[in-house]
Amino acid sequence: MAISADQLAQIEAQRGESRPTRRAVSAGLEDILYQIQPVLDHGFVRVVDYLGNDSSIVQAARVSYGAGTKKAHDDEGLIRYLMRHRHTTPFEMCEIKLHVKLPIFVARQWIRHRTANVNEYSARYSILDKEFYIPSPDNLAAQSTGNAQGREQLLPPDEAESVIATFREDAATAYNHYEELLSDEGKTGLARELARMNLPANIYTQWYWKTDLHNLFRFVALRADAHAQYEIRVYAETIGQIIGQWVPLAWSAFTDYEIGGAHLSAAQLNCLRRMLDGEDVSQQDSGMSPREWREFNEILKKSSISSNSMS
Amino acid sequence: MAISADQLAQIEAQRGESRPTRRAVSAGLEDILYQIQPVLDHGFVRVVDYLGNDSSIVQAARVSYGAGTKKAHDDEGLIRYLMRHRHTTPFEMCEIKLHVKLPIFVARQWIRHRTANVNEYSARYSILDKEFYIPSPDNLAAQSTGNAQGREQLLPPDEAESVIATFREDAATAYNHYEELLSDEGKTGLARELARMNLPANIYTQWYWKTDLHNLFRFVALRADAHAQYEIRVYAETIGQIIGQWVPLAWSAFTDYEIGGAHLSAAQLNCLRRMLDGEDVSQQDSGMSPREWREFNEILKKSSISSNSMS
Amino acid sequence: MAISADQLAQIEAQRGESRPTRRAVSAGLEDILYQIQPVLDHGFVRVVDYLGNDSSIVQAARVSYGAGTKKAHDDEGLIRYLMRHRHTTPFEMCEIKLHVKLPIFVARQWIRHRTANVNEYSARYSILDKEFYIPSPDNLAAQSTGNAQGREQLLPPDEAESVIATFREDAATAYNHYEELLSDEGKTGLARELARMNLPANIYTQWYWKTDLHNLFRFVALRADAHAQYEIRVYAETIGQIIGQWVPLAWSAFTDYEIGGAHLSAAQLNCLRRMLDGEDVSQQDSGMSPREWREFNEILKKSSISSNSMS
Amino acid sequence: MAISADQLAQIEAQRGESRPTRRAVSAGLEDILYQIQPVLDHGFVRVVDYLGNDSSIVQAARVSYGAGTKKAHDDEGLIRYLMRHRHTTPFEMCEIKLHVKLPIFVARQWIRHRTANVNEYSARYSILDKEFYIPSPDNLAAQSTGNAQGREQLLPPDEAESVIATFREDAATAYNHYEELLSDEGKTGLARELARMNLPANIYTQWYWKTDLHNLFRFVALRADAHAQYEIRVYAETIGQIIGQWVPLAWSAFTDYEIGGAHLSAAQLNCLRRMLDGEDVSQQDSGMSPREWREFNEILKKSSISSNSMS
Repeated sequence: MAISADQLAQIEAQRGESRPTRRAVSAGLEDILYQIQPVLDHGFVRVVDYLGNDSSIVQAARVSYGAGTKKAHDDEGLIRYLMRHRHTTPFEMCEIKLHVKLPIFVARQWIRHRTANVNEYSARYSILDKEFYIPSPDNLAAQSTGNAQGREQLLPPDEAESVIATFREDAATAYNHYEELLSDEGKTGLARELARMNLPANIYTQWYWKTDLHNLFRFVALRADAHAQYEIRVYAETIGQIIGQWVPLAWSAFTDYEIGGAHLSAAQLNCLRRMLDGEDVSQQDSGMSPREWREFNEILKKSSISSNSMS
Repeated sequence: MAISADQLAQIEAQRGESRPTRRAVSAGLEDILYQIQPVLDHGFVRVVDYLGNDSSIVQAARVSYGAGTKKAHDDEGLIRYLMRHRHTTPFEMCEIKLHVKLPIFVARQWIRHRTANVNEYSARYSILDKEFYIPSPDNLAAQSTGNAQGREQLLPPDEAESVIATFREDAATAYNHYEELLSDEGKTGLARELARMNLPANIYTQWYWKTDLHNLFRFVALRADAHAQYEIRVYAETIGQIIGQWVPLAWSAFTDYEIGGAHLSAAQLNCLRRMLDGEDVSQQDSGMSPREWREFNEILKKSSISSNSMS
Repeated sequence: MAISADQLAQIEAQRGESRPTRRAVSAGLEDILYQIQPVLDHGFVRVVDYLGNDSSIVQAARVSYGAGTKKAHDDEGLIRYLMRHRHTTPFEMCEIKLHVKLPIFVARQWIRHRTANVNEYSARYSILDKEFYIPSPDNLAAQSTGNAQGREQLLPPDEAESVIATFREDAATAYNHYEELLSDEGKTGLARELARMNLPANIYTQWYWKTDLHNLFRFVALRADAHAQYEIRVYAETIGQIIGQWVPLAWSAFTDYEIGGAHLSAAQLNCLRRMLDGEDVSQQDSGMSPREWREFNEILKKSSISSNSMS
Repeated sequence: MAISADQLAQIEAQRGESRPTRRAVSAGLEDILYQIQPVLDHGFVRVVDYLGNDSSIVQAARVSYGAGTKKAHDDEGLIRYLMRHRHTTPFEMCEIKLHVKLPIFVARQWIRHRTANVNEYSARYSILDKEFYIPSPDNLAAQSTGNAQGREQLLPPDEAESVIATFREDAATAYNHYEELLSDEGKTGLARELARMNLPANIYTQWYWKTDLHNLFRFVALRADAHAQYEIRVYAETIGQIIGQWVPLAWSAFTDYEIGGAHLSAAQLNCLRRMLDGEDVSQQDSGMSPREWREFNEILKKSSISSNSMS
């Protein structure tokens, strides 16, 4: 991750300044404000601003004149109640602004979350840096056969080495040509908005991204899921840790109910009741397809570790 | 406006507390944070939280690592440029949370602005206070004849007095019956979610409302407009003053380009060119309908006072 | 429900016309297009237009050049897969436009669903009809003691009678005064936008409301739920029947996975595993609060009737 | 544009089928439904479905029981009034679904329009076709010096030739390596979700994209503008023509008020008034910056051709 000395100095300058505020403060986020949280080989997430804390959720739910908080125990109970019953609007009352550096193919998945504000670094206006995501060997895996949109076992070391060499060389070639296209030395030079189209999808871009806590939970639920592509999952996991520092009560309720929980269909609930009554239910008489039956058994075996893995 | 002593004490308690923060601060908003800004007879707007200031707009537009600000003059120029060219996303990078008390018929107009987060006081869960909007005589006007959705000249004093008496009496009757319906003294008592339907649209409700600066500008542009109903316009004007204290540079650009500006159609631009060439254009040869022609002349006469009236 | 002869004639005129189209057609919706589906005493839902059918979901998921459909069995399997794994975007590819007549207090809950397009009858511009929702005795219930935002046992007949009389009289008084306020016979008369504030929240309004199938499912999930207020639940149930006629495969998947399903927390899943292993788990050693434990047992007892009640 | 024989057959099969519907129909769109409208070298836009026509706008604005239409002349006047006064909600009552094939760097600009539904062809699940956007020589231009995010004069022919050669070769290399990475002949083969990151931003993707007419107008206003990048502008212009066939009255109002119109600031309106009074105003005493002054003069000179160029 090539953060320049000048950029680091700017970050440190911002961290060094402190002003009094009457607003709600999150001690956990103040600690890490502006700091680079590295993700992948050159990417990062850093919190640039935020609004609200656990008390703000309570305050909004109560439409209160003051801080909204009664006793810490009551607040926790109310937050858990709101989460359990999917009363989502109080969670929308917290907001966070992130500065994210990420490969373009990850950015293309990320942007599908529409309820957010975005300012992306413009490759029409500026020249992109020479930074590409090159996977490490332990992230180079084969196409999954069971799941058409997933990966499976790791590539053997020599094949991984060859893949990495291809990524490196093609990125270098593309970037050299990008620079040549732009250059006006001894020639006219191509406009930036055109030259950029030669660059591959693993080049890094960056943006300011701002969203509310409810939509951030949706982002984490979808993108930290085992079915999400590894390269966006690591961003979602980093954001999960950030949420844990920001609003620990809400995060704890979220990991218990959402991350560690599961949704069961009518057919699955029906099987459960039969099993609890002592019946030995098989896929054939479960009313489920083989795939649903397999998913059902995975849920039943899902250890509570999963809910802890993100905290 | 009947704010209870307990509520005022909660507000003062919040105003009395101050904590250090590394975040961007708006001195103007810190001054008025949590304070009641009265609107209508019992309503108010108060800022409960905010995120960002003028520099945040610049910072997001530049996707910068630091505060984003170079020289104050540069910042102002950039903000004016963004406003003029409708680059709206940097303005979305500021967020504000308001606590608003307002009559239900105003709330019904307000809620049509969909890009916002809302938590309203629940009349299913709680009992509404006995507070109704009763217009003052200088806001009681006749139906406009030219504009089907507007009002015109004031009612004569005796008619106004009678109207006010009607509003007062019907509100009192409705509220008394509301209390009787709820009461379980000597009887079962009706559920709150049902009893509330007896209350008229001028009863006050309240909510927490959070939105970004771009959408707040849209709210003010539509609701502080001369065609908006007076009872929501006063809320929009109060919010305009709040924006002026929050992000003075953005507010100044907004009043110059939006509030004080105007949109001209192709036909209107064409007329303008002919008039600037010295031609004497009449409605008949303008290519505009009588109504468009009248609106065109209003724009040309619109004094620059309009842009100042909100600052 | 006072639909005028003129309105019925307009509806029949529209139903009588038929034109050829190359678009996807839903036979079930064509049957009921424009027809009034009565809800409550004066309300209704009617389908005014729609876009797409079950095949459109499949077509969008496959980004196909043709109709997208292979075999009916494959389509059903794909739709169930999309629903189960919360791949929501293909469901957004169907759209419906409804004309709804509903009491204002129901409209205020309904409008909280923000991802929709709305045009409401304007009481600034027009005069509201004299139609109020008056609950029938079997919908007049007491405040729930266990659930602060709910109702419980029915009122005794004489109390119900008295409640209905109050609703009727206050509505009549308010409407008579509304007409007097507007009247310009022998006086100036008050503007419509002001007079309307005298009307209670059980007066009927109407709107055109358009949304996509995914957001319509969210509406039904929340508003047809047992915790929703009865007066909006009946609208949600009517809409559920409409969806069943529109996209039967998607509706079937939705009732199985969402309406008839349940979400379990990490703690609840953990208890389930212990119970399936033969352990006798009590609330005390469940890791759940008494309230969560009660909800857990309700889920386990939830009969599959619930999923059928809407179909 | 390499549409396969099989794809063309599917399109023709859909065009060949016709069914009766009671819904509003747009004759103009029925004519072109499903047809490929070519854009750039391999891209296209085709209308896959739609909801509503000009009458639907009128019908929604009137919240009517029937078709909403009175006389054609009245409809046109109402639509122009709604457009002029920015009553945007009736335009949201029409919806269109497009199938679009476009280069990834265009898709990245396009997706920033958030109020839309999208299903994109998945490169995690499927293998992308070997189709890249290669600009023609008359679209290869130099970086603009006056406008940091634009292009200016064309490249000289030999330089253009060299640029095209670079694009072609790098695309071919990247795609060959993409296929090699995926191949499992004699080796394991890399997962699709990883291999795709080697592909440049000018490769074509495709999606189903659905939005309402109001948001489609916003898309066209921004992306058919002279400041938009040529490669997205040609899509916006194609969509403009589609809108003209779909809702001719709304499109005519839009071109008159929006495309051919202009927004003037308070300072610009003030200058106009002085100029109409016969004053000779210069930039120095205009109260505008040199840049604003230049933009002002461009508006005054803007010929009405601009409004016609899209029709």
